[in-house]
Amino acid sequence: MTRDLTIAEIRLTPVLVADAPLLNVQGVHQPYTPRLIVEIVTADGITGLGETYGDTQYLEPARRLAEQLTGRSVMDVNGMFALDLGVDAARLEAGVDAGGLRGRQSADKVRLSVLSAFEVACLDAQGKALGLPVHALLGGKVRDAVEYSAYLFYKWAAHPAGVAAEPDDWGAALDPAGVVAQARQLKERYGFTSFKLKGGVFPPDEEIAAVRALAEAFPGHPLRLDPNGAWSVATSLKVAEELADVLEYLEDPTLGTPAMAEVSAGTRVPLATNMCVTTFGEIQEAFTRDAVQVVLSDHHYWGGLRNTQHLAAICAAFGVGVSMHSNTHLGISLAAMTQVAATVPNLHHACDSHYPWQSEDVLSERPVFTGGRVAVSDAPGLGVALDRDALARLHRRWAEDDGALRERDDAAAMRAGEPGWRTPVLPRW
Amino acid sequence: MTRDLTIAEIRLTPVLVADAPLLNVQGVHQPYTPRLIVEIVTADGITGLGETYGDTQYLEPARRLAEQLTGRSVMDVNGMFALDLGVDAARLEAGVDAGGLRGRQSADKVRLSVLSAFEVACLDAQGKALGLPVHALLGGKVRDAVEYSAYLFYKWAAHPAGVAAEPDDWGAALDPAGVVAQARQLKERYGFTSFKLKGGVFPPDEEIAAVRALAEAFPGHPLRLDPNGAWSVATSLKVAEELADVLEYLEDPTLGTPAMAEVSAGTRVPLATNMCVTTFGEIQEAFTRDAVQVVLSDHHYWGGLRNTQHLAAICAAFGVGVSMHSNTHLGISLAAMTQVAATVPNLHHACDSHYPWQSEDVLSERPVFTGGRVAVSDAPGLGVALDRDALARLHRRWAEDDGALRERDDAAAMRAGEPGWRTPVLPRW
Ligand SMILES: [Mg+2]
Ligand SMILES: [Mg+2]
Repeated sequence: MTRDLTIAEIRLTPVLVADAPLLNVQGVHQPYTPRLIVEIVTADGITGLGETYGDTQYLEPARRLAEQLTGRSVMDVNGMFALDLGVDAARLEAGVDAGGLRGRQSADKVRLSVLSAFEVACLDAQGKALGLPVHALLGGKVRDAVEYSAYLFYKWAAHPAGVAAEPDDWGAALDPAGVVAQARQLKERYGFTSFKLKGGVFPPDEEIAAVRALAEAFPGHPLRLDPNGAWSVATSLKVAEELADVLEYLEDPTLGTPAMAEVSAGTRVPLATNMCVTTFGEIQEAFTRDAVQVVLSDHHYWGGLRNTQHLAAICAAFGVGVSMHSNTHLGISLAAMTQVAATVPNLHHACDSHYPWQSEDVLSERPVFTGGRVAVSDAPGLGVALDRDALARLHRRWAEDDGALRERDDAAAMRAGEPGWRTPVLPRW
Repeated sequence: MTRDLTIAEIRLTPVLVADAPLLNVQGVHQPYTPRLIVEIVTADGITGLGETYGDTQYLEPARRLAEQLTGRSVMDVNGMFALDLGVDAARLEAGVDAGGLRGRQSADKVRLSVLSAFEVACLDAQGKALGLPVHALLGGKVRDAVEYSAYLFYKWAAHPAGVAAEPDDWGAALDPAGVVAQARQLKERYGFTSFKLKGGVFPPDEEIAAVRALAEAFPGHPLRLDPNGAWSVATSLKVAEELADVLEYLEDPTLGTPAMAEVSAGTRVPLATNMCVTTFGEIQEAFTRDAVQVVLSDHHYWGGLRNTQHLAAICAAFGVGVSMHSNTHLGISLAAMTQVAATVPNLHHACDSHYPWQSEDVLSERPVFTGGRVAVSDAPGLGVALDRDALARLHRRWAEDDGALRERDDAAAMRAGEPGWRTPVLPRW
């Protein structure tokens, strides 16, 4: 074979992607959210795609990584994880991250979040060079379609007046009826058969009422509620008690492993997390204390698709379930999630995805949900292709931004609609 | 690409391989030990190689698996693990396995041991078809050579008179001087710089003396002692105390996780195991109780190379070290061990290998140890090639055997030299 798998060039393109005014405990999604698109080009001119967080703190490590990878083989993925990305631990706050929704910030997590995009891009390039889907490079798919849940949000009808934003046609959802209407829309458009409500927005009783309304409207459909650590242990236990008969799981009702362990000990409702177990270093304490029964993997901050497989194996060994977390992301990451999810035998819960909320993408063709599922592509690599015009347009938006939107800041976005809003001290209720 | 990765044919060849009279707590190695060679042939005529245990109980599940794999893709490895191999749990004893040296027998372990040979053969075929080394299919090597330790055994000079056997030139090793002499020979021939003594053969004081003699003869060299669960907790603690200053780790001093946890709590010597943690189901209790500080992975009974990577990731998450176990095996498995070991970042201990004791192989060229290391092959697949004549010869030996050697039985072999020998009840000391 005359194929040359050397990395000849890496292109890093930060973009700003339109996002809907979706509410959470920290505030509201910005009208545009930063993502970073990674293109790894081999000497043969094959391009592999990856994407990750686009906040400024990810860009410099990505540049350092890109410099070091040029000239290496696109097959040499494990070796990449030993490279120094110069992530400055001292500059990172010891608290939760900018979004406040993904658990504790750490240098390792930023490093892995950057690496993940490069690992995915390498796998995409490998697959294209070898004529194989990414799942085959990961040992092969064990299912032909991956199930996703409908990701419900409390939502304003529009971003605040005076804020530059793209409109959306989903309408507002600020009470049980609004949530049920949104669920119905998502089900109609995409066929979802399970629902997750992002909570932590209204007092717990209102969110309990919303979940009850969903249970009535969609009997037998698995339901999840995720307030992102908004509640005390006592409140968490009360909500769990009231919703025990309808919840598939309760996600991060309270912050931190010790508090989650207390809740876990007091309820038969399974607890899920993408906040207290977000790195390999956090697993031992959480599993030993039986603090969580389901871990939401996320190939971005766990460091790629192979690490996601490792995480799933760890969960299997400890009798912990696996589901999948999603942040605001584009189709590259949806394709990557779908490829790895297809290979995980013990994925017994539908995956989360924000993707239905993303009206924009950098792909020439959007992945589609049918019957709540995404078909596992058997095309080479991830099976997606870049729309260079779209990429250029979204990058221009980033380049022209004065910096206000280059860091995701849900509290700042909230203040545009609710002046005086401050990031709540958790537990809020 | 016109490449056809469909599995067209699978050849299963049980063989009997010459083995030296190496002593352990169960008895002595048979003069010939059964192994199963797996050849997976693609529609393009590419052959992938794997090997595993060859005892009768592995053969029927291997045949069932082979039948089901024909017509599937050689890339479809994960899917293989869901197939029914018809391993009859009821027929397996609930006790330790035939060798008595690899922990608890279980249907799952037999199943995974069979699957491992097919997984390795698939990876070898994939690599040959794609022009890539197996390590590249596993994410790439993180080292160019894998370190092995010299595997020292108490040993008779020859198999008992009257027993058909191949001679060896290693001589006897039945006391500290003999063990040191053997270590010197192994070091001279292969350059090993760390030593593991298979213990459980003589009363603990004699084995302590042997390790002390090694420490004096090879100052600063990491030393290990593995009595395969021969000792009580009290004896284990005594040996650990006496050898604390020279042991890299103490391997399976006593049987079972509860007893290992007791020993672990009472000594600062790290404990290693390939007996109480041999399946994913055994990890939780052992890690939660801090019963072991090092797990000896073995791609045979852990179910292949990807599972070995998963195991290493689990160990990393729990701060447990990784080393590698070896049974009597041929060069195919040594190549497989080396390929996967090359990809495991947290492999901080030299791997074990019986291979220097194997005078026979089915390969046209034997892998070599230089400076105690095996170079990581970058050739396609495992980088080894079958010697069909050798395979046929070793298979003929199996076919002509009356059944006495087709099940590894170290106690039966021992009785040929020590009539009246019975498998000792453990703990023996
Ligand atoms: Mg969450
Ligand atoms: Mg052992």
